[in-house]
Amino acid sequence: MRLSRLLRLQSVFYNQSEKRLASAIQHMVGSKPFNLSLYKLALKHTSIAEETINGLKISNERLEYLGDAILGAVVAEFLFKKFPFRDEGFLTETRSRMVNREALNQIAIKIGLSKIIEKEFKGKNLSAHKSIYGDTLEAVVGAVYLDRGYDFCKKFILKRIIVHFDVDGIITTTSNFKSKIIEWSQKENKEVDFKTLSVTGNQRFKEFHVHLLVGGEVVAEGKGPTKKKAEQDASKNACEILNLDF
Amino acid sequence: MRLSRLLRLQSVFYNQSEKRLASAIQHMVGSKPFNLSLYKLALKHTSIAEETINGLKISNERLEYLGDAILGAVVAEFLFKKFPFRDEGFLTETRSRMVNREALNQIAIKIGLSKIIEKEFKGKNLSAHKSIYGDTLEAVVGAVYLDRGYDFCKKFILKRIIVHFDVDGIITTTSNFKSKIIEWSQKENKEVDFKTLSVTGNQRFKEFHVHLLVGGEVVAEGKGPTKKKAEQDASKNACEILNLDF
Repeated sequence: MRLSRLLRLQSVFYNQSEKRLASAIQHMVGSKPFNLSLYKLALKHTSIAEETINGLKISNERLEYLGDAILGAVVAEFLFKKFPFRDEGFLTETRSRMVNREALNQIAIKIGLSKIIEKEFKGKNLSAHKSIYGDTLEAVVGAVYLDRGYDFCKKFILKRIIVHFDVDGIITTTSNFKSKIIEWSQKENKEVDFKTLSVTGNQRFKEFHVHLLVGGEVVAEGKGPTKKKAEQDASKNACEILNLDF
Repeated sequence: MRLSRLLRLQSVFYNQSEKRLASAIQHMVGSKPFNLSLYKLALKHTSIAEETINGLKISNERLEYLGDAILGAVVAEFLFKKFPFRDEGFLTETRSRMVNREALNQIAIKIGLSKIIEKEFKGKNLSAHKSIYGDTLEAVVGAVYLDRGYDFCKKFILKRIIVHFDVDGIITTTSNFKSKIIEWSQKENKEVDFKTLSVTGNQRFKEFHVHLLVGGEVVAEGKGPTKKKAEQDASKNACEILNLDF
């Protein structure tokens, strides 16, 4: 902890803009940053990154890569514990819906990160970089992890990021591909049917293979260890093929 | 830590096979398991999992999902720190080569996990499940994480798993798509050329778009923030298109 105390002492030497940044980070993360330079780097989008003499561009992309992995691990555990009776297919799907770019963009706005980013860009046009908020949020997660360690970072993610997810909303759409397809078919006045093609494997390890038919024509196929899961899988594929939004 | 001490006391009541398993886990992980049931679950491949009365199948797949995420985070940080001057594209590519199924299968054999799995299968045929070793390794990582927390699990991954990776070998193939292509062209007596099609963006944020030509014909294209990276990207795509193995 000695190094971190030393780093904290640095705050005495902050200039005005560093003081403002440190206070904004404290507000967002929940605690004063130990090493402010990590957060400065996290805010350095590649479009405003300067090139060093040897042609290296110092941007937040490496921190984004790290933050993405840490965020993925924390969200994985969060879902693992929240849904003790759901299978890994459901967990994987829900996780990828939670950490997608658009969802992270929204959360960056909610926790005030967007305001900090806009200051860094000093009035430059941000609209060319659609995913800048979400990318930077991941980089900030990486910075928090390096600055404060896993346990602190996990708390930050749980209390300040995940809390903004509409997990129930995400789950409803994750689990209901089949009902989505049926709802669509009723609206479009089409007939949807499932046909089991084959059941392979032994008593313990079965695999069902089904077709999803719309008006008698095969639209998608699906596989799974139970008939229900295979139909869900086929419905999910059909939703993608038919471009059904959620 | 009280719960963990209580769980440790359980070991007094282990039966013979549990004693053997606990000792094998200790040997592999580097410390006695607190909660042996987590490791038992980690070894429960879906093909030997039993169904409960309400149709739920208790297998290691959920733990595998969790372990995959934790392993991903630890490997991400390992590479982040090992290569302070490489960009996120290189880090992402190297990571995915490290945690792929085949690499994990090999490591499961090296650390003796395969022997434990074979005991669990009690002579049943394992050959139908190609990736069982790697899958189970991920599940074991998930079990170690839940049993002992992030810091312990990170040490386990660094000292007992990553140590077996031929990181340098992986990197050579990751970084050298361009030299691979050139080497191939010399062997095949063909002429390889790169052509820059366009450079878009402003001074700070450029994107190069290049074509890779073999004997005058376009084989692949690539993009990147520098000419070198765009050529590397095109070479990588060409390696895939031309089925050049590493």
